[in-house]
Amino acid sequence: MPETSEQEDNQQRLLQVNKALGSGMFVYVRKLLQNMPAYDLALILQSSPSKSRTVLWQLIDHDHHGEVLEELNEEVRKGILKKMRPEKLAEVAEGMDVDDLAEVLRTLPDSVYREVLSSMDSQDRSRVEAALSFDEDTAGGIMNTDTITIRPDVTVDVVLRYLRLKGELPEATDSFYVVDRKDHFIGAVSLSHIVTAKPEVVISKLINDEITALNADMPEREVAQLFERYDWFSAPVVDDEGRLLGRITIDDVVDIIREEAEHSMMSMAGLDDEADTFAPVFKSTQQRSVWLGVNLITALFAVAVSSMFEDILGQLAILAILNTLVPSMGGVAGNQTLTLVIRGMALGHIGESNARTLLYKELAVGFLNGIIWALLIATVVAIWKQDFMLGSVIAFAMLMNLTAAGIAGVTIPLFLKKLDIDPALAGSVILTTVTDVVGIFAFLGTATLLLGT
Amino acid sequence: MPETSEQEDNQQRLLQVNKALGSGMFVYVRKLLQNMPAYDLALILQSSPSKSRTVLWQLIDHDHHGEVLEELNEEVRKGILKKMRPEKLAEVAEGMDVDDLAEVLRTLPDSVYREVLSSMDSQDRSRVEAALSFDEDTAGGIMNTDTITIRPDVTVDVVLRYLRLKGELPEATDSFYVVDRKDHFIGAVSLSHIVTAKPEVVISKLINDEITALNADMPEREVAQLFERYDWFSAPVVDDEGRLLGRITIDDVVDIIREEAEHSMMSMAGLDDEADTFAPVFKSTQQRSVWLGVNLITALFAVAVSSMFEDILGQLAILAILNTLVPSMGGVAGNQTLTLVIRGMALGHIGESNARTLLYKELAVGFLNGIIWALLIATVVAIWKQDFMLGSVIAFAMLMNLTAAGIAGVTIPLFLKKLDIDPALAGSVILTTVTDVVGIFAFLGTATLLLGT
Repeated sequence: MPETSEQEDNQQRLLQVNKALGSGMFVYVRKLLQNMPAYDLALILQSSPSKSRTVLWQLIDHDHHGEVLEELNEEVRKGILKKMRPEKLAEVAEGMDVDDLAEVLRTLPDSVYREVLSSMDSQDRSRVEAALSFDEDTAGGIMNTDTITIRPDVTVDVVLRYLRLKGELPEATDSFYVVDRKDHFIGAVSLSHIVTAKPEVVISKLINDEITALNADMPEREVAQLFERYDWFSAPVVDDEGRLLGRITIDDVVDIIREEAEHSMMSMAGLDDEADTFAPVFKSTQQRSVWLGVNLITALFAVAVSSMFEDILGQLAILAILNTLVPSMGGVAGNQTLTLVIRGMALGHIGESNARTLLYKELAVGFLNGIIWALLIATVVAIWKQDFMLGSVIAFAMLMNLTAAGIAGVTIPLFLKKLDIDPALAGSVILTTVTDVVGIFAFLGTATLLLGT
Repeated sequence: MPETSEQEDNQQRLLQVNKALGSGMFVYVRKLLQNMPAYDLALILQSSPSKSRTVLWQLIDHDHHGEVLEELNEEVRKGILKKMRPEKLAEVAEGMDVDDLAEVLRTLPDSVYREVLSSMDSQDRSRVEAALSFDEDTAGGIMNTDTITIRPDVTVDVVLRYLRLKGELPEATDSFYVVDRKDHFIGAVSLSHIVTAKPEVVISKLINDEITALNADMPEREVAQLFERYDWFSAPVVDDEGRLLGRITIDDVVDIIREEAEHSMMSMAGLDDEADTFAPVFKSTQQRSVWLGVNLITALFAVAVSSMFEDILGQLAILAILNTLVPSMGGVAGNQTLTLVIRGMALGHIGESNARTLLYKELAVGFLNGIIWALLIATVVAIWKQDFMLGSVIAFAMLMNLTAAGIAGVTIPLFLKKLDIDPALAGSVILTTVTDVVGIFAFLGTATLLLGT
């Protein structure tokens, strides 16, 4: 991951802004921020300590507040919104896309939310209310309502004249939607077909069969998969009766894909994917401590298992020294399998149909790796401690535990998914508990049998 | 992560195909595969055991081979390519996008590569050779060459007539590029401006200033960031002299974003992001064993530290039992910080300008969490073992180690990045070594001082 010059630029800008902020040169900071795109402003806010954010927010041109809110991650946005007055928020709301605005409103406390809605004009309010009626993570929740609709029986020439009259198209328009008089979706016609067709061609002849309408209830993950599968740039959204409601463009989908992919990594460390890197210390401490608490319980469980072998540990201090080795290797091997399975499940590669094949495969990989590392560690220990028996004990435990790790790495995430629990979040704790317990039992148990007096 | 119906569909298809394959109903399998989009065919290949892939590949309509190759992940693709004859490959190559074809050719052994190139017709060959002249991970390596160029001094009407004459636009065309007579890039005109402008307007008046050309050498990560920053749908690529070479569309960028985000998660488990879930057992064993080997070394290092305290461990078996607790909590806390920092670095939130702020913050979070868990564990141990001194020892060690974990979680990835080493790959091993060593030293060292006889 070499530093790209883009990132250097970000850091350069950030340094400049922070330095000026530190010396109280507010007018200069305002000037620096003035010409930056919303994405960069969001980046600066997200990269600044939480206490600087309020000042920076005030220095950003208020006309850009809406766009910047759209780009911010949820946690940072919440922190800023908390400090804004409802009237001010309503003002900012005017310039925002309906889907983004709905997302913002959902995070507000009820009283503020209602105040913002009531201070909007009635047309805007009804559009936002429509967007709010869909679940956040569905096609309806991420769609925009600014579509251009045409009738099937008009000619290309009529459409072109209409467009010229309109003067401007909604952002990212790559196709128009053909609807009947009751707004039922008939099909999509791409802009490139309109410009290449003869003027007298009737629109219904240009309909692209490959584009199907998405139901407003479709989960956003599924929407993202369809975009990836068919290389769509935009897609129409309809209600249960097939009436056109809006459209989803690929830039919304890009965000979903990034979040999905980040989600697994963050969850595996017990973090929220919207976690704010520069959150206040108390907030971060609180957020982290949940996961540490869960891990303490599993660690105490391993301690309890060890304490069953207090006798042999008291007899042979070398066992105490080596006791971490087998669980640690099991944890690493198990986490490899787990990570692969979690990714495979997210990409749709793994499910009922091939779970068994995968289980056998990982069992074999675990066993084979078990043999390799068992032999190696046995040799090291036998030479180091001049104790062939001790070497055999650790070798046996290693083989057992790496095999168990392979099985656990496949079965735990599949099982959690059946229970509707996120495998990325809970998988690695459960897995580590299994590899710790199996590792300690196999090592200290065999040692008690073979080395005990 | 609930199972979406999309994923159920995939699994349904996979079950059907595998069942038919198992009973030797090849004609039926061929029929099943016939109407699937390339993305689904790639998904089926990637979700099947490596030995079924050769059969499946033969049963896929050969006209679709090119598209399917484009969709496959690198490792699976390599396995299939290895078994194809060069002439067959050259045939398949004809239908592929230049950027994808170049990617495929790069993975071939030299002799096959040259044979494929020489069996292509000269026009295709020179286009592919041009694409191959750029680095795989740069704008030049991912661009396509099918752009539509127009002159600045023509009118909208002329352009529209030209387009109608052409009859079809390259896939995903949302803008045209304006060039001078020597092919130097002047600017971009969006298709939506062309259709909304009056016919007599001159093209040069419609140029969109926001779209800047990317240099062919720009790393693909940076390209992806620009697309995200400006919500572009496509962007022109130029050489050092500013001559137009091609364009990048957002569907190429989506792949980069997904790979980037997956890369961190896979690397943290010591896996390649192109790893094939259903690779043969020997191959997987070999790939995993590298990481297990690295971890064995760090685990042995921790063992060596423990063995320095053999005396006290021999005296007090309870220390042996509790010895895993402090390192384990340190590892978890450190990995949380590490994960957050790695994501922050990838998103460009963290760099020189705010590393110190972050360090102080994580130090405080580690210290605070240290106090919480130290008090808790001390109480548990003091009550369980009726030993206040032992409780104090473990509390002190916990506080030390969680603080160290916070510092290590910030400094290790930043330091690795300075050395141009991927923090996602090496970070967690180094971090665990630090938290193991600090944890053992703090616990057993303090125990020796306070509890030893």
